[in-house]
Amino acid sequence: MAKLWGSRFKKKTNSLVEKFSSSIGYDYKLAKYDVLASIAQAQMLGKARIISVRDSARIVQALRVMLKQIEQGSFVFDKKAEDVHTNIQNALKKKIGQVAKKLHTARSRNDLVATDLRMYAKEEIRNQKSKIKYLQLVLVEFAKKNIKVIIPGFTHLQHAQAISLAHQLLAYVEMLERDQQRLSDAYKRCDVLPLGSAALAGTTLPINRNYLAKLLGFSKVSANSIDAVSDRDFVLEILSALSILSMHLSRMAEDFILWASPEFGLLELDESFCTGSSLMPQKRNPDVLELIRANAGTVYGNLLALLTTFKGLPLSYNRDMQLDKPAFFNSLESLSAGLEVFSELVKCCGINSNQALMLSSDELLCATDLVDYLVRKGVAFQEAHKIVGKIVAFTQERKLFLSEIPPEKWKQFSGRFEKDVYGLLNAQASVEAKRSFGGTCLVNIKRELSNWKKRLKK
Amino acid sequence: MAKLWGSRFKKKTNSLVEKFSSSIGYDYKLAKYDVLASIAQAQMLGKARIISVRDSARIVQALRVMLKQIEQGSFVFDKKAEDVHTNIQNALKKKIGQVAKKLHTARSRNDLVATDLRMYAKEEIRNQKSKIKYLQLVLVEFAKKNIKVIIPGFTHLQHAQAISLAHQLLAYVEMLERDQQRLSDAYKRCDVLPLGSAALAGTTLPINRNYLAKLLGFSKVSANSIDAVSDRDFVLEILSALSILSMHLSRMAEDFILWASPEFGLLELDESFCTGSSLMPQKRNPDVLELIRANAGTVYGNLLALLTTFKGLPLSYNRDMQLDKPAFFNSLESLSAGLEVFSELVKCCGINSNQALMLSSDELLCATDLVDYLVRKGVAFQEAHKIVGKIVAFTQERKLFLSEIPPEKWKQFSGRFEKDVYGLLNAQASVEAKRSFGGTCLVNIKRELSNWKKRLKK
Amino acid sequence: MAKLWGSRFKKKTNSLVEKFSSSIGYDYKLAKYDVLASIAQAQMLGKARIISVRDSARIVQALRVMLKQIEQGSFVFDKKAEDVHTNIQNALKKKIGQVAKKLHTARSRNDLVATDLRMYAKEEIRNQKSKIKYLQLVLVEFAKKNIKVIIPGFTHLQHAQAISLAHQLLAYVEMLERDQQRLSDAYKRCDVLPLGSAALAGTTLPINRNYLAKLLGFSKVSANSIDAVSDRDFVLEILSALSILSMHLSRMAEDFILWASPEFGLLELDESFCTGSSLMPQKRNPDVLELIRANAGTVYGNLLALLTTFKGLPLSYNRDMQLDKPAFFNSLESLSAGLEVFSELVKCCGINSNQALMLSSDELLCATDLVDYLVRKGVAFQEAHKIVGKIVAFTQERKLFLSEIPPEKWKQFSGRFEKDVYGLLNAQASVEAKRSFGGTCLVNIKRELSNWKKRLKK
Amino acid sequence: MAKLWGSRFKKKTNSLVEKFSSSIGYDYKLAKYDVLASIAQAQMLGKARIISVRDSARIVQALRVMLKQIEQGSFVFDKKAEDVHTNIQNALKKKIGQVAKKLHTARSRNDLVATDLRMYAKEEIRNQKSKIKYLQLVLVEFAKKNIKVIIPGFTHLQHAQAISLAHQLLAYVEMLERDQQRLSDAYKRCDVLPLGSAALAGTTLPINRNYLAKLLGFSKVSANSIDAVSDRDFVLEILSALSILSMHLSRMAEDFILWASPEFGLLELDESFCTGSSLMPQKRNPDVLELIRANAGTVYGNLLALLTTFKGLPLSYNRDMQLDKPAFFNSLESLSAGLEVFSELVKCCGINSNQALMLSSDELLCATDLVDYLVRKGVAFQEAHKIVGKIVAFTQERKLFLSEIPPEKWKQFSGRFEKDVYGLLNAQASVEAKRSFGGTCLVNIKRELSNWKKRLKK
Repeated sequence: MAKLWGSRFKKKTNSLVEKFSSSIGYDYKLAKYDVLASIAQAQMLGKARIISVRDSARIVQALRVMLKQIEQGSFVFDKKAEDVHTNIQNALKKKIGQVAKKLHTARSRNDLVATDLRMYAKEEIRNQKSKIKYLQLVLVEFAKKNIKVIIPGFTHLQHAQAISLAHQLLAYVEMLERDQQRLSDAYKRCDVLPLGSAALAGTTLPINRNYLAKLLGFSKVSANSIDAVSDRDFVLEILSALSILSMHLSRMAEDFILWASPEFGLLELDESFCTGSSLMPQKRNPDVLELIRANAGTVYGNLLALLTTFKGLPLSYNRDMQLDKPAFFNSLESLSAGLEVFSELVKCCGINSNQALMLSSDELLCATDLVDYLVRKGVAFQEAHKIVGKIVAFTQERKLFLSEIPPEKWKQFSGRFEKDVYGLLNAQASVEAKRSFGGTCLVNIKRELSNWKKRLKK
Repeated sequence: MAKLWGSRFKKKTNSLVEKFSSSIGYDYKLAKYDVLASIAQAQMLGKARIISVRDSARIVQALRVMLKQIEQGSFVFDKKAEDVHTNIQNALKKKIGQVAKKLHTARSRNDLVATDLRMYAKEEIRNQKSKIKYLQLVLVEFAKKNIKVIIPGFTHLQHAQAISLAHQLLAYVEMLERDQQRLSDAYKRCDVLPLGSAALAGTTLPINRNYLAKLLGFSKVSANSIDAVSDRDFVLEILSALSILSMHLSRMAEDFILWASPEFGLLELDESFCTGSSLMPQKRNPDVLELIRANAGTVYGNLLALLTTFKGLPLSYNRDMQLDKPAFFNSLESLSAGLEVFSELVKCCGINSNQALMLSSDELLCATDLVDYLVRKGVAFQEAHKIVGKIVAFTQERKLFLSEIPPEKWKQFSGRFEKDVYGLLNAQASVEAKRSFGGTCLVNIKRELSNWKKRLKK
Repeated sequence: MAKLWGSRFKKKTNSLVEKFSSSIGYDYKLAKYDVLASIAQAQMLGKARIISVRDSARIVQALRVMLKQIEQGSFVFDKKAEDVHTNIQNALKKKIGQVAKKLHTARSRNDLVATDLRMYAKEEIRNQKSKIKYLQLVLVEFAKKNIKVIIPGFTHLQHAQAISLAHQLLAYVEMLERDQQRLSDAYKRCDVLPLGSAALAGTTLPINRNYLAKLLGFSKVSANSIDAVSDRDFVLEILSALSILSMHLSRMAEDFILWASPEFGLLELDESFCTGSSLMPQKRNPDVLELIRANAGTVYGNLLALLTTFKGLPLSYNRDMQLDKPAFFNSLESLSAGLEVFSELVKCCGINSNQALMLSSDELLCATDLVDYLVRKGVAFQEAHKIVGKIVAFTQERKLFLSEIPPEKWKQFSGRFEKDVYGLLNAQASVEAKRSFGGTCLVNIKRELSNWKKRLKK
Repeated sequence: MAKLWGSRFKKKTNSLVEKFSSSIGYDYKLAKYDVLASIAQAQMLGKARIISVRDSARIVQALRVMLKQIEQGSFVFDKKAEDVHTNIQNALKKKIGQVAKKLHTARSRNDLVATDLRMYAKEEIRNQKSKIKYLQLVLVEFAKKNIKVIIPGFTHLQHAQAISLAHQLLAYVEMLERDQQRLSDAYKRCDVLPLGSAALAGTTLPINRNYLAKLLGFSKVSANSIDAVSDRDFVLEILSALSILSMHLSRMAEDFILWASPEFGLLELDESFCTGSSLMPQKRNPDVLELIRANAGTVYGNLLALLTTFKGLPLSYNRDMQLDKPAFFNSLESLSAGLEVFSELVKCCGINSNQALMLSSDELLCATDLVDYLVRKGVAFQEAHKIVGKIVAFTQERKLFLSEIPPEKWKQFSGRFEKDVYGLLNAQASVEAKRSFGGTCLVNIKRELSNWKKRLKK
């Protein structure tokens, strides 16, 4: 198989080595970018008269045909050619013969693959961001549809305070927004062109890197050729952002799985998003959510794999760096699929509002409101906390509801209690009273829903 | 030990539980921020008339005294009080009695610890950035001092092309610059105030969160109380940025360790930065560099610990989250120390320029220049690569230097070779010829050195 | 500060370096083993006449005094002496003067620290194993106490089939048993003496390593001196076993947290193992279980830290290896505490048997029994599965219980259904019918309980 | 597409869900084991008269045909059928119609996949062990061939003491031996049959699990059905062992890469195991070794992925567990290929013995021998260390070799020095003098080589 480097070698490469070091099994995904970068390279070489304008034009024309084939899926990759660059180069030679030998002028696979990967990364960031945005929109719609639903808010998986379901859904939207921002910030650092760094030292030929950057849509040109071919921190940064995103998705999935359990009974997953059991005929399992939760493991693993791989590598390029691609591609694909299916799942989810009502009728959810009540009447906070603690203990010993405590007993706990205390003992009142900015009251929720709709529509 | 929550409990907490769940062993590091946040809280409570102005003033005054003690290291932490918040609260009560019980109004430890941690994170980002900048400056100085030194550039730890030593040092500076940017971007996401989110739902009391933000120097107020107490993505983002930074440092350390080995012999570590052996009296070991390299493992481990911990946690606060602190603190401290000692080490390093000359006299470093020579004369790149490959093979079989090939032999390999080819066969010429933007020639280096000096002086 | 290696150095070590590379902050935990190894070394040196018998005796005697001080906690470590070995050596010199200089003969810190660490590891494995065994015993007791309790068994957090609570508890016991086995297997590989390997090459002095092994209780002597000082795979293996153990504990903790939620309501945590909220007076939080769950993150992080640290390290000893200790110690301490508190927690747990009865009254838990019923009557399994699937769908559309289906309707679904089908529709019958080996019926549980009691009493 | 569970569902599964949750893309690798387990199941069902002997025979016969197709690679997998079990079941039904519906009796995919995976794991452990053994053998041969070669032994990548090259190669053999042992120990825990645990609770049908175990070659039958379907600790244990193995390989690769650099110049890689550069015609790169080093990252990543995935999963089976397979398969395949190519590479390696001689002529490698010399003459070790330290410093200031110090100068440093000191100053003498057990002298090496040959030939 024609290689890009064999000339000085007397011996054939060992076949195990060819198999072991081949990357075409995954880097074929970069073909589109490899051809685009090659078109720009040929154009630049022609413009700079490093090759003739005619040779440049012939190369560009042939590459454009190949680009179409790749986009249409009709380009045939040769698994025996070690990588995507060799595949493109060999195909070009087959098409236009000797002139193809001029394309690889003033570049190396080191700067070429870095260019391909950055182009891929930029497109993928845009893709992930649009999928995140869609999930945010779906959550906002879901929140809006269930805006009146009140559920117990949990800390430590114990009932804490009553909250609006929409409020919790908007918490996810906030998290996803930061995930978007992180990807946008990573984008800035991807958007730097390495092409023209050659192997590691730059080139003696009069290339025009700004022209390359313009053709390829890069905002900046790398200022140090060794750095340009040595580092993959942009990949690690994206994987970090994706790890955090996958962590957020795993938490949402966990909440949804809990809510969909018979014990919680809050969430109704659509049958089309459930799977069954080969043995137990009654099962309706939230497999999709479980796989989304598990994807966090996959993405974390990929991040660690690359962090480890780059640890302690001397400059500049080392072959270890080839393994950036499977880990990177796999993470992006896992999350892309996960975001998509999660959005569709949420769109079909129902809320069991009777159950929500039932669960949030737990009067202990209002205990904090009793404390605030006393504080408003001048009791020192810790004093108030203590008093209400005693009331709670009292009801639990006697297996009473708070609302079953008679007025005179309230007085015994604190003289500040008046009859209006009974009005605090329902979830709706509790939610409505949380009017601090960021709190769970309806007016806040409505404002946030409307804000998000505007932001996400952009 | 007085707790912040014991009122409804009949039984004493099991002593194993107290020990197992205590965090004062590490969260005492947040004391300063806990007091600052408490001062702001008391001021806000007073201003909003939730507590009296007089009570507010007394609390603030006492807390200011405590702040001074903490800053001076004279505050005594009580290891039996479970966490930093309890320590501060108990100390306040000791100081001013009953009125202390009003401080914890309209807040919870959930939003308080999130606030403390964000304040800590903001200060630490500033600290890390200034240490990175200092290392960049030191590297720029080191590059300037050795601006004439030429070394072999490596790919695959094999000789690739001659490069300027300064060029490689500036590659590290570029990497560190991106590390700075990542921390700056993370800063934006730290700079959001959670205080006032209370346990998870907001509060019924008329707090003023914008005023709190102003007092505490936060640019934004969190818009969702559940999100505010549930998420620690800002910690994970910082740990990600630090992991990438530690990866960069590990690569620099590796290069330095290699260069300091007797076989490379390029770098002379100052004796004050070496350690010896208890058995082998001749040893001069680069332990500092090895520990910097190893720190990458530590920081990665901390990142993965927290990613794992947060995977699949239901909203909102869970006690698991307490373990964000040791991993976070440890990473920041490791890197802070590593950056500091690395800077000092570089300041004392010497370059063995004779050895640099000797290693870069390897004429094969110029093979690519021969290819470019032929390309400039119209030979197709891959043709030229092949010709030079044969020349290299020829010299290796005969154990010749390239410069020992007689003129007529060059002509045999390609008619384009003229006598000027001998002028290409030295490292200095090779370096000087790499004039493409980002390439290793002196003029580029000088421009970059001057740019960096300006940027870093800001 | 006296160092073990300074003789050839003209310059003082930089103070930042001293601080950065100091390990006494954590390796003081090895002091006991360092002294024990030193006693054995001195005895061997004397016996081999490498030092005089008298010198040997004086060293041994002084070290024994120090050992006692260490065990009593009265030994004062000097934080300025870089590591535990230097501390011991300096203290010895202070005690007995010049003769102390003979102790470090024919050894190096490289083989000494490996010896200390293996001794520590062996003791810690025994400690962890005994704590695991205790937790197993507690689980067996808890299972026995609640042997009649039937709960829904879950797959995908959905009701699957009725199971005995004891059966699930015994599943944990099985997991913990394998954790024990893994530690025992790791022990074999710890139990090899490196002492006498010196720095890396062995020694020219006539030492007796078998005698050392006998004195220190090692079963084997390492056969390759380079391997002995270079590798820490025994640490990694233990950390792997602990990671798996912590994973198991995190799953138990998760189950317990779920069961203790108000929605499940199965498990009653004793108040002495709960914590409260600084804001919400009603809270009873399972913090201990959450921290046990979070410990998995900590231990994984430590494992990955060390795997990363050792990746790509050239032989033999490198200073990077110093960082094996904090990660190792921290993991052992976390798990030791976690196992201990978990055992105590389980001992105080109650089961809400009414709630268990209520939850397991879900007749769908018996759907698989209906399938088996048909299979026993000759229906092909997949046919039977399909029939029961239809029955389930039928009941859900009509919101019926299975037991509300009239006999003739059963017949319509399959002619094989007789009246005895109603007898299948309760959790107890379902559990009792699972008589396959390993299945959840009472007779199996009793046999296993009795087996475990015997095995664990050993 | 026919599913194993669709009967109660009214709606079709969403197509995104089918794609997202499909595992046939990787679990087809279990097909052989799935069929073997199914054959055993059918035989057992027949023998236990749960299905008729005739049905059993027909199923077995058809499965045997499928087994052959799978082994020959002619079985066609249907990518639309969600997993390997569905593929096998559907193919069986196509072959033999209705009777196929009886195969899945008294089992579930939960116990089936656990069985398949354990069978796969057992075979793969045997495979890995045989590849490790082969690499050990190759290293032993390589050591034997170069038994006279002496090189500098390194600590901290600085010259420490002269060692036999064979000694370092045998250090790797020792490490690999422990890797083998760890896999053997993991094997014991894989060798337990889960089949017959059904979904999680066992079955009501009179199955014979011991017979299944006998047919499938398992030594034990799992004693708890919940444990059997819930846990994958055997996968995690193997991945841990493989992570440690990959760490060892990364260290060997690092040493080889260093030795093959022009600066070290010790190792000559065969051209057939090197690759070139698309730009630099002179390059001969050790890509294979770099990829082996990088594989550590891949395997660690897979380990972390699964540790994370299992963290905090409630019992029993959850769909998250499906992702055990890609991570497991990928690790085994990476290491299998890595071990194979590493062995072949070593077989073709040459040692540059002139360079070895040159590097080990560094007299400082003998400094420790001077210390031992003094110790043998009665000088206290630390005294001797100090004296030799001064001698080293003396030679370095004056740029002298140790052998250039005149006799009288030696005397000045210590009266114990006699003329025989010059005899110590060569690497060969130094190596020969390390006669302690495990030390680097030739006699030890020869004994170890012969021991290893015997052990590995078994």
